[in-house]
Order: sequence, then C-alpha cells, then structure tokens
Amino acid sequence: MTRHANRTTGARLRIVLRPDVALGPGKAALLDSIQETGSIAAAGRRMKMSYKRAWSLIETLNRDFGTPLVATSKGGKSFGGATLTETGSRVLALYRSMERRTQESIQEDFHALQRLLPDIPK
Amino acid sequence: MTRHANRTTGARLRIVLRPDVALGPGKAALLDSIQETGSIAAAGRRMKMSYKRAWSLIETLNRDFGTPLVATSKGGKSFGGATLTETGSRVLALYRSMERRTQESIQEDFHALQRLLPDIPK
Repeated sequence: MTRHANRTTGARLRIVLRPDVALGPGKAALLDSIQETGSIAAAGRRMKMSYKRAWSLIETLNRDFGTPLVATSKGGKSFGGATLTETGSRVLALYRSMERRTQESIQEDFHALQRLLPDIPK
Repeated sequence: MTRHANRTTGARLRIVLRPDVALGPGKAALLDSIQETGSIAAAGRRMKMSYKRAWSLIETLNRDFGTPLVATSKGGKSFGGATLTETGSRVLALYRSMERRTQESIQEDFHALQRLLPDIPK
C-alpha cells in the first residue's frame, strides 16, 4: 500500500474529519478495490495487504462512520462477497472529489515547486 | 512528529514532485521550526524528533532540490545556528500556499463528509 506511494507525482490527500478519524489514499484505494473486485480478499491481494489488515481498515471505517461502508455476505454462493453501501459509495465519491479539487487548486504552485528541482541526471 | 498528526481536523497534503521526491507536513513543519528557532537542534526538540532525524530530513531536502534549503553556521558563537536559504523560504511558502488552496477548494466536500459522521457520544 505504501510501497508505491511516492512513485506517482501529484498530491496525496489525508483528511482528518475529527480527532483520530482520518481518511487517506490507503482507505480510499481499498474502497475502490472492493467496488471493483466485489471481494475484500481480492481487494486486499490487489493492494498487497493481508486480509486481516484489509478487514481492520474496514472495521475502522464502519466504526468511525457509525454505519457500514462495506456490506459483506455471510454465506451461500457469494460467501466472502463484499460491496460498498450507499454511505461507502458517498464517502469514496467525496474523497475523490476532494482529490480532484486539490490537484486543480494547487497546479500552479505545484509546477512552480517542480521547477525548483534540478534537472534529472542522465 | 506523527504523534499528533491526526488530532487537528483538516487536510494533510503530501506532494510527490518526482518519483521518491516528496514534501509533506513533517518536512514543512521542520522548515517552519528552523525559521522560528534559528536552530536545527531546537527545531528537532520542538518536533520531538532526534537531532539525527532532523538532519537526515534536511539532507534529503538539500539533495532533492540540488541546493541547500537550510544554511548552517559551522563555528564561532553561532555554532549550530541555522536559517532557511532563499530556496528554503520559497519551498516552504509554496507548500503553505498549496495547503491554503487545498483547504479552500475542499471545504464544501469536507463538511459534507463530516456531516456523515455520527454525533459524538457524550
């Protein structure tokens, strides 16, 4: 999750909503992956985190928001299946919106800062 | 440095300028503290980081930008004194500007996200 965090240029946004209640790139990517894979295990694998770690992040989110952001099926054919709840989708959409607005608003300063860097040695 | 990172509500911004060249709240706070205290040791103490850790962050910044962001005096009465160079001041100012622009641009989404949180239990 953090291994490639510094490879892609741009802004990383971490939002502290309340003391000790935070939302950042890791949780957002996990919600994204659950939405795409329909599975916590698959989302965890994609993010190279353990199932336990993925569950722990989801439990934190569910507790922080006082309502599930991820809904899981407990048995039957879809055992282990997971989807975002309406709140989960809303939280993810708001975070992605904040990322876009941030990137747009800082663009000028960002390039000014990049121009201070030395040329990359060949 | 990270101990209180999640206590104050708002946005935390981490800027990746180039693969493995990043600027975030920690380095910015260190530059701020050096500007205010005129000393790497004092800045480190204020941020509850070791002198070694403070120096390591500064060396990383100086190397990344290919020019010193922090100038130190090597001897005499002001031994250990440190100031921001023109580039150091410029980098810090650009980072603070990006923080302000971010906070402004995300304000609406930020409050929408906060409203999804449950009331704090008494």
